[in-house]
Amino acid sequence: MRENGYSLILASTNNNHADERQCLEMMLNQGIKGLIVEPTKSNVYNPNLSYYSLFKQRNIPILSINAQYEELNLPYIAIDDIKSGHLATKYLIDKGHEDIALITKIDDNQGKLRMKGYFNAFENCNKVFKSEYIYTYDTESKLSVLDQFVEHVVSKQIQASAVVCYNDQIAYYIMKKLEKLGIAIPNDMSVVGEDNSVLSKLEDVDLTTTSHPQELLGEKAANWVLNTIETGKVQPSELLDTYIIERSSVK
Amino acid sequence: MRENGYSLILASTNNNHADERQCLEMMLNQGIKGLIVEPTKSNVYNPNLSYYSLFKQRNIPILSINAQYEELNLPYIAIDDIKSGHLATKYLIDKGHEDIALITKIDDNQGKLRMKGYFNAFENCNKVFKSEYIYTYDTESKLSVLDQFVEHVVSKQIQASAVVCYNDQIAYYIMKKLEKLGIAIPNDMSVVGEDNSVLSKLEDVDLTTTSHPQELLGEKAANWVLNTIETGKVQPSELLDTYIIERSSVK
Repeated sequence: MRENGYSLILASTNNNHADERQCLEMMLNQGIKGLIVEPTKSNVYNPNLSYYSLFKQRNIPILSINAQYEELNLPYIAIDDIKSGHLATKYLIDKGHEDIALITKIDDNQGKLRMKGYFNAFENCNKVFKSEYIYTYDTESKLSVLDQFVEHVVSKQIQASAVVCYNDQIAYYIMKKLEKLGIAIPNDMSVVGEDNSVLSKLEDVDLTTTSHPQELLGEKAANWVLNTIETGKVQPSELLDTYIIERSSVK
Repeated sequence: MRENGYSLILASTNNNHADERQCLEMMLNQGIKGLIVEPTKSNVYNPNLSYYSLFKQRNIPILSINAQYEELNLPYIAIDDIKSGHLATKYLIDKGHEDIALITKIDDNQGKLRMKGYFNAFENCNKVFKSEYIYTYDTESKLSVLDQFVEHVVSKQIQASAVVCYNDQIAYYIMKKLEKLGIAIPNDMSVVGEDNSVLSKLEDVDLTTTSHPQELLGEKAANWVLNTIETGKVQPSELLDTYIIERSSVK
């Protein structure tokens, strides 16, 4: 960016609509030339949508990364989340698991798409998932839902032999909690994450997960904005491919 | 249906997941040949999705009407809800309204699509909607949100001269409340509904709304199921067109 004579402003919304609003107002006032946004709670109604519309009206290029606000037609660059959820689930089915739990985030678009991938994997194998094996959380209920899952496993309230986690952070939390309570990974419970974060590669973790080409995504996003500013033509959206990364958290 | 040797079972979920589950279990146990479903709270996670998957696995034709569960790839027959929201909003813009409120349902897919249509209409006219003019409700908060809207209008907390309502029932409720409090329709407030229900045609109402070909939709849904059963081939999905019906609730 700097090479091209642009400077970067970074702002964090803390996944919170009030903070997001402040960021957007600040950026509009500072006369920014382009915006890359990672949507806040993309699957619940966002009271700030009109701000995004304002960027569009002022012809300020705006790109959404990772998640999308489905109500607006913003261009996006994102991982193929349906494929990610599908791969994680299919991998466990191929390993012979029948009872596969899912822990997913329900207030963002990515969580919904990864869940769709989970459903598709079962359907393509002509199997049926069990509703009671699906744990959904939102930003506020995250910890209580994760702890509930752990408790259900420990008390044998569910008989799952494997679990697909929304992301590596969730997988990491689950693994640590389960191990502390005497559930061996992967012998008693196989765990798959999604997004190949640093957490998946810690020495005592070694998590099977799906790839998430963050740097590529960042590079593409920056190029998208530069190209859109300089050509004056909105560049096309792009869905990035993903694949499974086999490590040792699955039996 | 009867002509073709089939009988009809009708079940209502009261827009409630527990009731929906009971219906689905009952139908699976009775060995039904096909299912037409109007999804329950289609924009929040539905713990009964696995039941729908079970129908598919057992090769029982299943069609969703009106709303859709986006996570599953069920075939559907539905009104073009984006177009409906777009037409209702565009009609008001064309009449010269600038400050147009929206009251929409946020826990179903139709509400989200109609809102998308509202956004699109502003965008296509190169105008920006105002976040504070958008009122979203779910099944539980409906009445309190509607009353809040009425209060904001009466106390002049918002300056909207027109409102797009999720459906005619909402429009009817709003009109009656506003009129009782001295706000004249359409002189002080223009109102557009969506779905051309019986409520829109009452003598003292005469609501401008969008068409909703319910009978056609029902007929197409029945034919879809019959054809899918008899040909063994899943028939294609269909989006039905809609148009604006001008009456006298808009100035």
